[in-house]
Amino acid sequence: MTMASADTPHDEHAGHGYISGKDEYLKRLRRIEGQARGLQRMVEDEKYCIDILTQVSAMTKALQAVALGLLDDHISHCVVDAAVAGGPEAEAKIKEATDAIARLVRS
Amino acid sequence: MTMASADTPHDEHAGHGYISGKDEYLKRLRRIEGQARGLQRMVEDEKYCIDILTQVSAMTKALQAVALGLLDDHISHCVVDAAVAGGPEAEAKIKEATDAIARLVRS
Amino acid sequence: MTMASADTPHDEHAGHGYISGKDEYLKRLRRIEGQARGLQRMVEDEKYCIDILTQVSAMTKALQAVALGLLDDHISHCVVDAAVAGGPEAEAKIKEATDAIARLVRS
Amino acid sequence: MTMASADTPHDEHAGHGYISGKDEYLKRLRRIEGQARGLQRMVEDEKYCIDILTQVSAMTKALQAVALGLLDDHISHCVVDAAVAGGPEAEAKIKEATDAIARLVRS
Repeated sequence: MTMASADTPHDEHAGHGYISGKDEYLKRLRRIEGQARGLQRMVEDEKYCIDILTQVSAMTKALQAVALGLLDDHISHCVVDAAVAGGPEAEAKIKEATDAIARLVRS
Repeated sequence: MTMASADTPHDEHAGHGYISGKDEYLKRLRRIEGQARGLQRMVEDEKYCIDILTQVSAMTKALQAVALGLLDDHISHCVVDAAVAGGPEAEAKIKEATDAIARLVRS
Repeated sequence: MTMASADTPHDEHAGHGYISGKDEYLKRLRRIEGQARGLQRMVEDEKYCIDILTQVSAMTKALQAVALGLLDDHISHCVVDAAVAGGPEAEAKIKEATDAIARLVRS
Repeated sequence: MTMASADTPHDEHAGHGYISGKDEYLKRLRRIEGQARGLQRMVEDEKYCIDILTQVSAMTKALQAVALGLLDDHISHCVVDAAVAGGPEAEAKIKEATDAIARLVRS
């Protein structure tokens, strides 16, 4: 984990963590898209429900892994930068991150 | 991927619950596939992490709803039919269904 | 709290699956109660947040395991019995079970 | 179980976020302990499985809310303080927090 320097302008997303791993995220999301298409074929072909459910669980886990990676990058970069800068912006960023965590935990 | 082999005769699948709602499942899965593509665009365009995470949560919920629907159909049809028939087949079907539930709850 | 009214005759409960494993369930629930007390001590003693969170995750997993066990027993007994009996009672039991599964998956 | 040893001096814990809401956390954890006892009574009295499962879901949600509160306090205080201080300690704190989030999301 590298820390974005505090003076990075945030107009351009250069400081956003996921950019460093952008290709990796895209690869994982394309695989997830492929899983969604695979599920459609299974339903078309009237595959056994339990086999379809196994695929849905695998796809859900893959999505969760993407979410946890993005969250990790976000905290390491945006939240930390905001914390270093301080002030109400820092509080807002933390609130936003913890709200996103709550949505993930509950979904 | 646990795909039933292509040459297995799935005549008994005519009674599978999800077939009755096949078009509805396909529609929902196509929408989920679209969400996976939308996420790729968001990463490509370097959208804000939190907005991407919000989409991931929405997609996870949509997948869960598909899983719960399939499970409902499966219990209402396959498990009930096996229960009525009785014997070791019934026990095996119940074990298989509760294992799938456990995977869903834990994913 | 949705408690069955005290005066309802639950003679048919003799067939409830969890009764066979009643002592085991009670043992696990007492351990979970102990975890809840342990968490209070950790907060009292101002233990490190992350250590408390680790305990909360362990307790959540223990609760989930109890829920999955109860659900398994319920499907194997009540739902199957209702399925064999057939009629609207069977449908109601299945609906009730799948609603409980949905609550578990979403909690 | 990762319990901090009882004799570790936790002076720096004076800054821990949850202390500000300590009484509130203790109240919620006592209520959760009460739910664990209520579940034992329900099993003892052989209440209907589905009603027990409803209580388990409620208890799981209450635990999750405690976890999310602790995590929020932890990020707002420990993680932010470490971020401001910078250095390897900051990275370690962030890694520790994101690991705890992953455990919560997966539990």
